[in-house]
Amino acid sequence: MKYTTQMEQAKLGRVTLAMKSVLENERISSKDLLDKMSEGKIVIPYNKLRDHKRAHGVGQGLRTKINANLGVSKTHYKIDEEWKKVEMAEEYQVASIMDLSCYGNTSDFRRKLVKSSSAIIGTVPVYDLGNDQSRDFKKMTKDDFFKIVICHAQDGVDFMTIHAGLTLKTIEAFENNPRCLSIVSRGGALLYSWMKANGAENPFYEDFPRLLDIARDYDFTLSLGDACRPGCLEDATDAAQIQELLVLGDLTQQAWEANVQVMIEGPGHMPMDQIAPNVLLAKKLCHQAPLYVLGPLVTDIAPGYDHITSAIGGAIAAQAGADFLCFVTPAEHLRLPDLSDFKEGIMASLIAAHAADISKGIPGVLDQDKHLSRERAVLNWEGMFRYSLDPVKPRLYREGSEAKIEKTCTMCGPLCSIKNMTESIFQNH
Amino acid sequence: MKYTTQMEQAKLGRVTLAMKSVLENERISSKDLLDKMSEGKIVIPYNKLRDHKRAHGVGQGLRTKINANLGVSKTHYKIDEEWKKVEMAEEYQVASIMDLSCYGNTSDFRRKLVKSSSAIIGTVPVYDLGNDQSRDFKKMTKDDFFKIVICHAQDGVDFMTIHAGLTLKTIEAFENNPRCLSIVSRGGALLYSWMKANGAENPFYEDFPRLLDIARDYDFTLSLGDACRPGCLEDATDAAQIQELLVLGDLTQQAWEANVQVMIEGPGHMPMDQIAPNVLLAKKLCHQAPLYVLGPLVTDIAPGYDHITSAIGGAIAAQAGADFLCFVTPAEHLRLPDLSDFKEGIMASLIAAHAADISKGIPGVLDQDKHLSRERAVLNWEGMFRYSLDPVKPRLYREGSEAKIEKTCTMCGPLCSIKNMTESIFQNH
Repeated sequence: MKYTTQMEQAKLGRVTLAMKSVLENERISSKDLLDKMSEGKIVIPYNKLRDHKRAHGVGQGLRTKINANLGVSKTHYKIDEEWKKVEMAEEYQVASIMDLSCYGNTSDFRRKLVKSSSAIIGTVPVYDLGNDQSRDFKKMTKDDFFKIVICHAQDGVDFMTIHAGLTLKTIEAFENNPRCLSIVSRGGALLYSWMKANGAENPFYEDFPRLLDIARDYDFTLSLGDACRPGCLEDATDAAQIQELLVLGDLTQQAWEANVQVMIEGPGHMPMDQIAPNVLLAKKLCHQAPLYVLGPLVTDIAPGYDHITSAIGGAIAAQAGADFLCFVTPAEHLRLPDLSDFKEGIMASLIAAHAADISKGIPGVLDQDKHLSRERAVLNWEGMFRYSLDPVKPRLYREGSEAKIEKTCTMCGPLCSIKNMTESIFQNH
Repeated sequence: MKYTTQMEQAKLGRVTLAMKSVLENERISSKDLLDKMSEGKIVIPYNKLRDHKRAHGVGQGLRTKINANLGVSKTHYKIDEEWKKVEMAEEYQVASIMDLSCYGNTSDFRRKLVKSSSAIIGTVPVYDLGNDQSRDFKKMTKDDFFKIVICHAQDGVDFMTIHAGLTLKTIEAFENNPRCLSIVSRGGALLYSWMKANGAENPFYEDFPRLLDIARDYDFTLSLGDACRPGCLEDATDAAQIQELLVLGDLTQQAWEANVQVMIEGPGHMPMDQIAPNVLLAKKLCHQAPLYVLGPLVTDIAPGYDHITSAIGGAIAAQAGADFLCFVTPAEHLRLPDLSDFKEGIMASLIAAHAADISKGIPGVLDQDKHLSRERAVLNWEGMFRYSLDPVKPRLYREGSEAKIEKTCTMCGPLCSIKNMTESIFQNH
């Protein structure tokens, strides 16, 4: 391992290969990138054991990235299906994949994923403890928590969700302020049950320096999880959530001192008007570390359409400063997503990220919109498909309609405004 | 006709049957309703010839309403399919339907729609002139424009889009400030071509009092159309759009003096950060008249997914003060929507309206979210479906999964946080 961590290299003013890759794909100067990485405002999740040439940056001034979740569960154990999702994520250039497998031998899939994908790979190691059929989760030792982290690091994972902010103090705030939907984070719920059963502090919090040593060795990025993220609108912005954020702010500074990169995970279910204040809080309390939001879902009443509820929330969050959007599929709250759900989730999330980047004025992001609109202005359908986020679906729509060989479409037919304006302006000149 | 117009009755302090219907369905006092209707801030589009008991209010302090478009075109002329859309709109309690038919004998369908639907019914009369196969649109007389409005009024239409703001002055602003996508409003493009061919002022503007006389006779609401709404992000908030809005502000005041109800139509394609300023402009320049937005679509690059791009924009617009959202379907820009597109459009738009109403604090709107989340907290699937915006799709998702008879779902299986938290808390008490 030729270097310690990307963050240390940035502080030393050295441009690594991973940074070069980011510089090739973003409109940011190397000075700006080095400065922001030194300050923790940008991370490049890139495990030292990975050896491909593509790296992705997440943080201030960069394009908003999206993450797609995949992985098997006990009741839906179809490795092939998950592998098709990996291919689809590659096809649509999704920056990050989280493998959330929570059953069976997860290591084989994870290693293969790390080897073959050009995306950032993230995991939640504690799932593997919950998944261990031979032992009761509550009887795990402190060591077990760190060992499973080392295992994931050795598999080459670039970032890991670690719920280190769910401390005894956070649990006190949680218990003093009753919620409708308790703790909805899978990893958070596991840790809660372990802490309560053992009357013990969260091992990741209690022995945070040990976690930092491992993270530094492999240079994986800590994604500090929000165990107390709200699971419904009512629970948003409550004491438990904010208490946890305060802890994450402290841990962020400790990580940076050890040159370990950090992202902060954010809500959750949340009314629209609370999103920007929450982004501000997370950014401020966690010293401008990159923010990775899980939604936010702006209503609870739309099962089957939560890719849309979270596209609304994600766009608003990214506009307010969130850097990284976790996709949500139409299957959220209902089942493990199938390939079609997976695609819908990717599209909704890419739209939210792109719309926010336009409004934030990220250089160059409006170009594709301009190209597409110029093709639309001359009713050049092939051109429109070429610049579409998904070239497949619009083509299917048009080719399935009666107007497929006409210049206009079946919506307006001869009343097409573009056709009529073109003719009218032509006749009057 | 026992009364002149709803607005006049409001000014006289009289609560009409239509107002009673609104009071039954919204949390607003009769005094507040009368005041806001007198000031033009709330409209109840309800043609005097209609005789059903349901009326819907649109405007300040009321729930955000959505409109679903339907209607046949020349290249897709399937009346039965459109009729199924009417039934679906009824099923999901869509407040408003616009019949945008632009081919064939539109009057029969329109009359039947007015008779059978409990929604507000809107149309764009000028399409019927464009649709007249016996005559060149450019050779229509001024009288023709008013005659077609009378025809729609006699058919019982509750509101009509009238592009009265596309004046010679607006056209000057349009021509002096070149656009990527010209005029994308169907009605606007027709009027532009007529005005240019005849070297004449817009008849609806030139003879606005004549339009007001007709509107007052039938008490239909004027939906003042935005012919210059942007058709792509680049064209947003340009001189033509704002010049037209200035004209609409003047016309609004004239209409109110004649006790005619008015809505203002708004954009269009627009970057996220321009939406709130545009809502402010429309509301301010048009004296707080209800705002009816067509989108806004927050990126141009997502054909096939424009129900999502407009759900993001619509939610932000409604949060900023827009009162009425026109749905957009996945088929937008590609073909006339089919029944499945129609449903997706309704759902996306209902989500946007509901999310915005929560954030605006409209009384009572959070109740459904609370109910659903309480069912989710006890993993009661039937209860969750009952409170879902669409009870059908989530049930299909669950019933198609391996976990359909289990308490949890295939996403997490035994790692379900709700299950684990319930067990953990139970064991520790």
